[in-house]
Amino acid sequence: MMEKLKVYADRMSQPSRAVLIFCRLNGIDFVEIKVDISKGHHLSSEFREVNPLQKVPAIIHGSFNLSESHAILVYLNSAFPGIADHWYPSDIFRRAKINSVMDWHHSNLRNGTVSYVINTVLGPATGRPLNPKTAAEAEKVLFSSLSNLEDIWLYGDGRFLLGGSQPSIADLSLVCELMQLEVLDEKDRSRILSPYKKVLQWIDDTRAATNPHFEEVHNILYRAKKKFEQQRSRIAETWTKPSDKIGHSKM
Amino acid sequence: MMEKLKVYADRMSQPSRAVLIFCRLNGIDFVEIKVDISKGHHLSSEFREVNPLQKVPAIIHGSFNLSESHAILVYLNSAFPGIADHWYPSDIFRRAKINSVMDWHHSNLRNGTVSYVINTVLGPATGRPLNPKTAAEAEKVLFSSLSNLEDIWLYGDGRFLLGGSQPSIADLSLVCELMQLEVLDEKDRSRILSPYKKVLQWIDDTRAATNPHFEEVHNILYRAKKKFEQQRSRIAETWTKPSDKIGHSKM
Repeated sequence: MMEKLKVYADRMSQPSRAVLIFCRLNGIDFVEIKVDISKGHHLSSEFREVNPLQKVPAIIHGSFNLSESHAILVYLNSAFPGIADHWYPSDIFRRAKINSVMDWHHSNLRNGTVSYVINTVLGPATGRPLNPKTAAEAEKVLFSSLSNLEDIWLYGDGRFLLGGSQPSIADLSLVCELMQLEVLDEKDRSRILSPYKKVLQWIDDTRAATNPHFEEVHNILYRAKKKFEQQRSRIAETWTKPSDKIGHSKM
Repeated sequence: MMEKLKVYADRMSQPSRAVLIFCRLNGIDFVEIKVDISKGHHLSSEFREVNPLQKVPAIIHGSFNLSESHAILVYLNSAFPGIADHWYPSDIFRRAKINSVMDWHHSNLRNGTVSYVINTVLGPATGRPLNPKTAAEAEKVLFSSLSNLEDIWLYGDGRFLLGGSQPSIADLSLVCELMQLEVLDEKDRSRILSPYKKVLQWIDDTRAATNPHFEEVHNILYRAKKKFEQQRSRIAETWTKPSDKIGHSKM
């Protein structure tokens, strides 16, 4: 018998969350091994043995190691018995469309979201400065990707991508990506997402279809959201109520 | 019987070339339909019917349409009989590794190559200005990706990715990507590629394994290379031999 699946993940990473939720939803027997990116654990020599590319998520299954969340989700579908067909349909046409939207994800929705969130909020936590110019470029990619989701990928009467009546690994991957926007200032998040009514409904539907695992795995993100909100309101207070020291400055 | 496969492609686009070479190599009966990006044909209403995302390559097979080159290559493997197993192995472990390197491609080798080439040479042909700062950032991604190819993905004794003794769709896709560097100034191209001996050998091996189709489909790129070389040498002449007019200017 093969050794139990090990999933190396940081729940602050959206593709890590997609893999964890998928395993839990499908009753896969696995061990979650935390790789804290903010503490540089992905750069350790131990983790380099697991994934020389030093990225999460990564898995070890027996003597087999694998990285890249989409490749992992596809692998899990074929390596574990009894996973419902809607996650990665065996029909070659539906499967091809799911591969297509997942490939599109990389240079579009993922590219836009990651760069926007890092350059407006998350950068300092991983030692990168915030860059407003790069954030503005990322915002364009993000808006264009959201329009494509709304107008092209969410077609038909189904509640899920590609007209699906049940979620696939593409829904899980892309919704986890969009959840990363939770760490933004709420006004900013609403400004970005509110024009896309179908996208908002689809996020809710995917969440409902994958609960309670979805919310449990996202808890860390909601805690981070609160932390960033508190930081922002402290900064706002400092600006609206200057201290006596600043008030009496000779400058 | 299903209608003949239509491949919508611009041979100046590296993923278009990968799909065309794959079809020719495997004796797939198809029609190539040219979509000239430099003339904006991808933005036409006719092409929007084929691919609402307005990107090449795209295919129509009977009533089924599909975009994204990796998804197309995977689909062709399952939709056409008799394609040799090495292109997309049925073994789930080998297939997972091939999916992994193709997923990695998007945000790494592809991201670096596309942005570097557009911001040093190709931009003006598609109406974008050259941006040296973005080119410098892209160069970092490109070097890091080439290092990963050399040190991680090209392992073992095989001549191809992941220790393969025969090429897979990942070899074809990634080598077509690197071929785009042909349009650079030869000194620049050599500066970028020459430190990576295994990568250079792998490009040669993939070319040899897929000829004559590889060279035939790349001919357009070699012609573009010559055109850019001539442009560069004209600009160099202008700078080293200023005309009388400039010499006698009152400025």
